[in-house]
Amino acid sequence: MEKLQLLSAAEASLRIGKVAAAVTEASVDAVLIGDNANKFYLTGRVFAGYVYITATGEVLYFVQRPVELGGDNVIYIRKPEDIPSHLAVKPLTVGLEMDTTCYSTIERLKAVVNGSAVANASSVMRYVRAVKTNEELRLIRMSGVKQEHVYRKIPSLFRPGMTDIELQVEIERLSRLEGCLGQFRVSGDSMELFMGNIIAGENADAPSPYDFAMGGAGIHPSLPVGADGTELRPGVTVMVDVNGNYTGYMTDMTRTFSVGEVGAEALKAHECSIRINRELAAMGQPGTEAKMLYERAMSIAEEEGLAHLFMGHRQHAKFVGHGVGIEINELPVIAPRSRDILVLNNVIALEPKFVIPKVGAVGVENTYVVTPDGLKCITNSPEEIISLDR
Amino acid sequence: MEKLQLLSAAEASLRIGKVAAAVTEASVDAVLIGDNANKFYLTGRVFAGYVYITATGEVLYFVQRPVELGGDNVIYIRKPEDIPSHLAVKPLTVGLEMDTTCYSTIERLKAVVNGSAVANASSVMRYVRAVKTNEELRLIRMSGVKQEHVYRKIPSLFRPGMTDIELQVEIERLSRLEGCLGQFRVSGDSMELFMGNIIAGENADAPSPYDFAMGGAGIHPSLPVGADGTELRPGVTVMVDVNGNYTGYMTDMTRTFSVGEVGAEALKAHECSIRINRELAAMGQPGTEAKMLYERAMSIAEEEGLAHLFMGHRQHAKFVGHGVGIEINELPVIAPRSRDILVLNNVIALEPKFVIPKVGAVGVENTYVVTPDGLKCITNSPEEIISLDR
Repeated sequence: MEKLQLLSAAEASLRIGKVAAAVTEASVDAVLIGDNANKFYLTGRVFAGYVYITATGEVLYFVQRPVELGGDNVIYIRKPEDIPSHLAVKPLTVGLEMDTTCYSTIERLKAVVNGSAVANASSVMRYVRAVKTNEELRLIRMSGVKQEHVYRKIPSLFRPGMTDIELQVEIERLSRLEGCLGQFRVSGDSMELFMGNIIAGENADAPSPYDFAMGGAGIHPSLPVGADGTELRPGVTVMVDVNGNYTGYMTDMTRTFSVGEVGAEALKAHECSIRINRELAAMGQPGTEAKMLYERAMSIAEEEGLAHLFMGHRQHAKFVGHGVGIEINELPVIAPRSRDILVLNNVIALEPKFVIPKVGAVGVENTYVVTPDGLKCITNSPEEIISLDR
Repeated sequence: MEKLQLLSAAEASLRIGKVAAAVTEASVDAVLIGDNANKFYLTGRVFAGYVYITATGEVLYFVQRPVELGGDNVIYIRKPEDIPSHLAVKPLTVGLEMDTTCYSTIERLKAVVNGSAVANASSVMRYVRAVKTNEELRLIRMSGVKQEHVYRKIPSLFRPGMTDIELQVEIERLSRLEGCLGQFRVSGDSMELFMGNIIAGENADAPSPYDFAMGGAGIHPSLPVGADGTELRPGVTVMVDVNGNYTGYMTDMTRTFSVGEVGAEALKAHECSIRINRELAAMGQPGTEAKMLYERAMSIAEEEGLAHLFMGHRQHAKFVGHGVGIEINELPVIAPRSRDILVLNNVIALEPKFVIPKVGAVGVENTYVVTPDGLKCITNSPEEIISLDR
């Protein structure tokens, strides 16, 4: 019989121990975890059901589907209402994932744990997951290597006269053949994206409803973000920011390409992005306030006279980076009002980007690990603007 | 200035009128709609913000992003807390989408409409959206035509020695070049799928955690569904059920392919699937109970001695069809305990499928419109098992 728990015993115990410590810290007696990203974190797989973890580190796996998984503490249930009869001790307070679970489901779970108080466990899980284990770092680095392979081949996909979406489709194919899972896990009710964001020319200035760094009109108003069919004609930049999920863990990487020659303003802004990344990477270490990184990025953009193009032109994104892992929008958030403080083994993406009206977007995004010696880059591929047609 | 409302005046008025009538029916004074699928239904686009509709049919569009959208009743807000000051009359009861919005957001909105009672508006929107307008039917038919084009070309993508995932990647590319948006809108906290489900050989028998008709192990336990790298060797079937979202509206279509010859049991089960679809299509009309369709499907499977393979083998899906539109899992649900009754202009997919151990999955899925003369098929392409290597 296949085991439910796919993590090694040591790794499972490490992660469950981290959650139990955070549960204790939050003055909750137990958490009942149903979110797919969190279940993957706790078991190495997605299944239908719940993981129940107490402050003392006991764990029960309540499984609805798939059939026939086994292992210690695995209990098959038909519905969440079956859970209480399996709990030896009724917890005083149970944490539920209120930021990612719909209202009706939480109300149902509150009735299930009737008699226990409930608390919001979303932050507990978010803060635990923000600090990666060595095994997680290994998986993130593996994704980075594969994503680099794909990015290096992008110029070979270009054909004159192509549109942005035609190039995107070829990048998607290459990524998938390299092993990309396709799925772009993002937290939040309203965030949507398919395989990534490729924007070229004037489309870089089209504002989007989503809280991503860059916009783009998209090919349809039901998903208004990214490539919109813009022809890749000489003089435009092509910003490529596509899905790096190869291991259940993502890296986030952006590179800027060009067709023909691009003007001085675009080149200057691109150099500024590289400079911001370099300075932030030197600055960031355990204890650094996330908002200080944002402020430094903004002050460099101002110093170079590029603030009005920084993180957008008609519409500006109010952050310069974010945690990355199982989901694309993890902690810490590198934003002006962030209260996050960098911690050893956070993994963050920095994406100082500029929109040059009529030319396109420029800039570089890398994924970094927070170390005592600064941010260590794990998406290593050439950073200059790369010509697609040379 | 670009208009927020992309629907024609008549179409917008029709849809808002339907919602207002349902709001009245539900004894609610107004609904505050924030779900992307519902906002797309009401405006023809996704934006960050809310649509507020009263029982008397008044509508206000509260927009956070993108910038610079205009039109009647469009009000820019910075945050939902800005909404009440724009309401001329404070509603006694406000409907919120409690089945698709996270608990924390609903709690926040409850505070925003403080003083008004709240109710769950998810069903209101689900029932309204289940009955398609002529414009919606037009968009669904357009998706169907494009999806058919792609399916007809699938045999040309096959190369001997290919794996299921390699074939899937080529189908994804073809779909995207045909205009597929990629995004697979699905309702529910835990439902995940990338571009579709292609299962071949023994993988058809791998159970999945998700509530889809078929399973498959997937290529990674973080997304355990669909193709798993199975080689497409002679004797296997290849079931293709990929994303039909070309217009913001989806069609859902499955066809079964084969490599070499497949055995008598697979052929018989496939014929049985075609028979079930044909009989259900003749039976289904306005007023038909959805559960009667399921019961008829099951009794045909039993009659042919195939019940143990119907909708799975190691694990069985407990439905045979579902509504389709902006999302893949709309109303009505064609399941044993469904209380849904077919209504004129419902759009439903029927997917009677069988798993033949060691061979693969067989069966046909079509999307139908409910008409007084029965279910009218809108995914017309050959239904027999199509050889990939002939």
